Amino acid sequence: IIPIFFSLSFLVSSTNAADFCVGDLNGPVGPAGYSCKKTVTVNDFVYSGLAATGNTSNLIKAAVTPAFSAQFPGVNGLGISIARLDLAVGGVIPMHTHPGASELILVMHGTLLAGFMSSDSKSVYSKTLNEGDIMVFPRGLLHFQINAGKTQSVAFVSFNSADPGIQIFHLSMFANDLPTGVIAKTTFLDTAQIKKLKGVLGGTG
Amino acid sequence: IIPIFFSLSFLVSSTNAADFCVGDLNGPVGPAGYSCKKTVTVNDFVYSGLAATGNTSNLIKAAVTPAFSAQFPGVNGLGISIARLDLAVGGVIPMHTHPGASELILVMHGTLLAGFMSSDSKSVYSKTLNEGDIMVFPRGLLHFQINAGKTQSVAFVSFNSADPGIQIFHLSMFANDLPTGVIAKTTFLDTAQIKKLKGVLGGTG
Amino acid sequence: IIPIFFSLSFLVSSTNAADFCVGDLNGPVGPAGYSCKKTVTVNDFVYSGLAATGNTSNLIKAAVTPAFSAQFPGVNGLGISIARLDLAVGGVIPMHTHPGASELILVMHGTLLAGFMSSDSKSVYSKTLNEGDIMVFPRGLLHFQINAGKTQSVAFVSFNSADPGIQIFHLSMFANDLPTGVIAKTTFLDTAQIKKLKGVLGGTG
Amino acid sequence: IIPIFFSLSFLVSSTNAADFCVGDLNGPVGPAGYSCKKTVTVNDFVYSGLAATGNTSNLIKAAVTPAFSAQFPGVNGLGISIARLDLAVGGVIPMHTHPGASELILVMHGTLLAGFMSSDSKSVYSKTLNEGDIMVFPRGLLHFQINAGKTQSVAFVSFNSADPGIQIFHLSMFANDLPTGVIAKTTFLDTAQIKKLKGVLGGTG
Amino acid sequence: IIPIFFSLSFLVSSTNAADFCVGDLNGPVGPAGYSCKKTVTVNDFVYSGLAATGNTSNLIKAAVTPAFSAQFPGVNGLGISIARLDLAVGGVIPMHTHPGASELILVMHGTLLAGFMSSDSKSVYSKTLNEGDIMVFPRGLLHFQINAGKTQSVAFVSFNSADPGIQIFHLSMFANDLPTGVIAKTTFLDTAQIKKLKGVLGGTG
Amino acid sequence: IIPIFFSLSFLVSSTNAADFCVGDLNGPVGPAGYSCKKTVTVNDFVYSGLAATGNTSNLIKAAVTPAFSAQFPGVNGLGISIARLDLAVGGVIPMHTHPGASELILVMHGTLLAGFMSSDSKSVYSKTLNEGDIMVFPRGLLHFQINAGKTQSVAFVSFNSADPGIQIFHLSMFANDLPTGVIAKTTFLDTAQIKKLKGVLGGTG
Repeated sequence: IIPIFFSLSFLVSSTNAADFCVGDLNGPVGPAGYSCKKTVTVNDFVYSGLAATGNTSNLIKAAVTPAFSAQFPGVNGLGISIARLDLAVGGVIPMHTHPGASELILVMHGTLLAGFMSSDSKSVYSKTLNEGDIMVFPRGLLHFQINAGKTQSVAFVSFNSADPGIQIFHLSMFANDLPTGVIAKTTFLDTAQIKKLKGVLGGTG
Repeated sequence: IIPIFFSLSFLVSSTNAADFCVGDLNGPVGPAGYSCKKTVTVNDFVYSGLAATGNTSNLIKAAVTPAFSAQFPGVNGLGISIARLDLAVGGVIPMHTHPGASELILVMHGTLLAGFMSSDSKSVYSKTLNEGDIMVFPRGLLHFQINAGKTQSVAFVSFNSADPGIQIFHLSMFANDLPTGVIAKTTFLDTAQIKKLKGVLGGTG
Repeated sequence: IIPIFFSLSFLVSSTNAADFCVGDLNGPVGPAGYSCKKTVTVNDFVYSGLAATGNTSNLIKAAVTPAFSAQFPGVNGLGISIARLDLAVGGVIPMHTHPGASELILVMHGTLLAGFMSSDSKSVYSKTLNEGDIMVFPRGLLHFQINAGKTQSVAFVSFNSADPGIQIFHLSMFANDLPTGVIAKTTFLDTAQIKKLKGVLGGTG
Repeated sequence: IIPIFFSLSFLVSSTNAADFCVGDLNGPVGPAGYSCKKTVTVNDFVYSGLAATGNTSNLIKAAVTPAFSAQFPGVNGLGISIARLDLAVGGVIPMHTHPGASELILVMHGTLLAGFMSSDSKSVYSKTLNEGDIMVFPRGLLHFQINAGKTQSVAFVSFNSADPGIQIFHLSMFANDLPTGVIAKTTFLDTAQIKKLKGVLGGTG
Repeated sequence: IIPIFFSLSFLVSSTNAADFCVGDLNGPVGPAGYSCKKTVTVNDFVYSGLAATGNTSNLIKAAVTPAFSAQFPGVNGLGISIARLDLAVGGVIPMHTHPGASELILVMHGTLLAGFMSSDSKSVYSKTLNEGDIMVFPRGLLHFQINAGKTQSVAFVSFNSADPGIQIFHLSMFANDLPTGVIAKTTFLDTAQIKKLKGVLGGTG
Repeated sequence: IIPIFFSLSFLVSSTNAADFCVGDLNGPVGPAGYSCKKTVTVNDFVYSGLAATGNTSNLIKAAVTPAFSAQFPGVNGLGISIARLDLAVGGVIPMHTHPGASELILVMHGTLLAGFMSSDSKSVYSKTLNEGDIMVFPRGLLHFQINAGKTQSVAFVSFNSADPGIQIFHLSMFANDLPTGVIAKTTFLDTAQIKKLKGVLGGTG
């Protein structure tokens, strides 16, 4: 027995970098993600944060609960992640993009009206999804989900990135200090409309 | 209005190759996947084949229902896919690998004992997952799922490939014509054990 | 001389696929781009379509002239492309994203106010760029350019994709048949505002 | 002379990160590999560890001598590595996979019976290789090599990864503490067979 | 307002690694580039170093001014960069390659004779480029630019890498200590020619 | 037995695109390589063309025998290939680059003086390699091999590309119709030297 382990002992490394790279959230970060934790256990690869219903008592009557590399460092470097969507009746995930990933939605409970626009801006691909349906949203394209049904909806969205990002158009416009004049110029929106939304979403300027 | 559309008309292409490439299952296939269908509708991006419970009346008391590019051509070229797992009580997804993708499992109903082995062969990362738990299985590593609970289990597994492949070790060994002598040499198994499994799994030689 | 050519003759292939793959716009398209043209000349690698000033007599007082793989098939498969921006005084390239590429702008003439928002939606990175300045817009993030100066501006934008796509938010919202109710739900905009913009940009529904 | 060096002096950087990144085995590790050593010499790019015959006095009558990034840090970040296989008469490299790389074998001395199984599990691709023959094993698929000849064999296996990993199925099953019950469930093997192999390969549980 | 920010607060991270990774030139370097700076401003994404005319009072009557990740850390990890070329009348950018990137040239002022050779060595693709013309040089291939016109030329070259590297053949041969005998063997050049160029370019040995 | 095969029958596809894509040399070619052959056998994955000694009776007293995707279509899409080098005493593989791949050399017989230059042009990394030694040449960098020993040498070079290309500098300069004036300008060589080499290597112009 000793000989076989001797000849194969090179296979054991302290980091297992060939296999995985659980993120060390306190170490240096590089373009490919977090540095690898030195010691890992099975708990680094399991996450229970998506089991609970998200709080939908908010403006959009919806909640996004992510398991990206910052919340679930086990996916760091593996090019995959997931998030949970909860939408109360009338809830909505506003128009948004994921700058670095394609998305695949799976409807768990209820129904969802979901759609995306292709980059020619002329085509809308939208449909009401029922329990068990899946839909794919290509990388970087604008998409949305609406609970147009009569019951609470739950869905899970997978990504082919450990850190896909999420850019919600109207938060990017109205929840920061981007000047009203710049917004008006670049979106064709009326100034009154902009100021109203800045008020709702917390923006200044 | 006409001027703006004129100046932006370059953005409309018949294939939308910049956005997506719905697979044409009858066209040429290349290393990056299927050729792109010329005309697409929203139905190319939606799939309902995972809504139904898989048939678990089989040897492993389990079913795998994939939505890979061959079943769901909308994911072709997008680097993402999903599959549904149904496991009756005592059901098992045998030891297997996905040659080209990492996997993320989400337990929908019931419980599952799931695990993977790192490539140093010394470490086992396994845990009982409850409803709502997720676990990640790094690219290419051996892993398994067992329904060790008392109710039917359902889970969904996401992949960062449109065509991750699935190689079940004991089907690769015992369900084809790989000679018994070669199996014995390369697995340390006894000949009687090999012949028994070839009988069960349909292999010859 | 003959011997050396004989031993190296393997290096000559009709397609030069190792080097380049000039797009055949009439051949099959796959996830990695167009098929390769069989015969190429230097003219496949040179394009003069960016030499002329774009027509800015339109709603946005601006023009985008691309040299992506559809216009300039020589870049097919090479992961690089470029476009020319012309902005009259007061001209604007509206809020948009490139789903599959990072962008680097170079201001040739005049000045431009340019900026992008990070995906946390809280941060705006914007600045007035002068002649010779460059600015980078990370992959998939919302950005804009405005000619806030007193002269015509010209800029060139490079991409690390042969087919980066361009999705202009307000065309995606208001230039197609996405229903007004869906837009209202997913953008927080007032119905009157939406109907007004659909009128300007040619949308229906 | 000075002017030309002045204008090109930007080309000299202390790390040469554009060219290579010799691994610093003591620095932080990330998803893309080791950090780069600051000072390098030609000896970082040369390795003599494959010149010696591996010790085949062991259970498998074979030895694997790798030159992966942990042994040969010069390949770090370059996406390539190599290993030497020595097989005594009757020696065997057991069924295994490389989670992150394709492999190309070159037989140097003797003969080898080599093969792989595709992920449909129905197809076996195996053949006896002679001196000078090469064979490719696609990424992540199960494969094996057996010295079925009458002389010592030597082969070299190249990988398109600096750290391809190697997962030997029966070490992953029987050389650690994966419980016998789990193995039985997930492999269809008899308990007696499992206990026997755990005894041979050093497993517990 | 508070509820929406609460449910979306996960989107704010201190590093914004999902979006960008401005290079920290003093931190560890890995195969994917520099570590990410912790705090960034818009100035990290803007660079004015290409606005000034390069000094062409040198042997090649030309200057290359790069904005690679070492000069412009904002592009670190984004896979894009740019450089400015200035060529006096008769100036030349000598035969060179970029080991890790394709290049796209845009002629701003004057004319340039530019070309590349495919790897079959039999084909030369060269042409005189005028103001506004673009030309693409596929990854890793030898290419050159000459100002054969009657006025100063300016061009900008984009790359699909943040750190493309630049290897000028005759500097690699004649500006270091590569022995004359090795050069003669590997280039077929006469010894006298080699010694003459070593003299001009500063080489020894 | 039937049930298990039924539930897993999705795993069998005619192309096995998830696993491999043996090149169809007569089908369309795309940026990612050749189209996939529809029917394959083990012989598609095995190649014997490197077993024979290359013919070194030529100008460089050396031969390169490749097993790239054009010669060995089994590697198409797998990102790996290999070539054999034979060098008679005094033989040389002239200065060259592989535009799309890193290279790893393994010396089988004899000795070789091998080296590469980093892109700063100031550093030469060269060493005499003995039997069993390996050396890595980073992607795209100039390198060479010389048989400075007293016996025939044989080496094998692996690449992390199925089609790495090979660009030999002095063939690219002197074996085609690149005009003498352009060569002189871009290489600093004397016209007499250029004309002499064009004569030897078959160039015109």
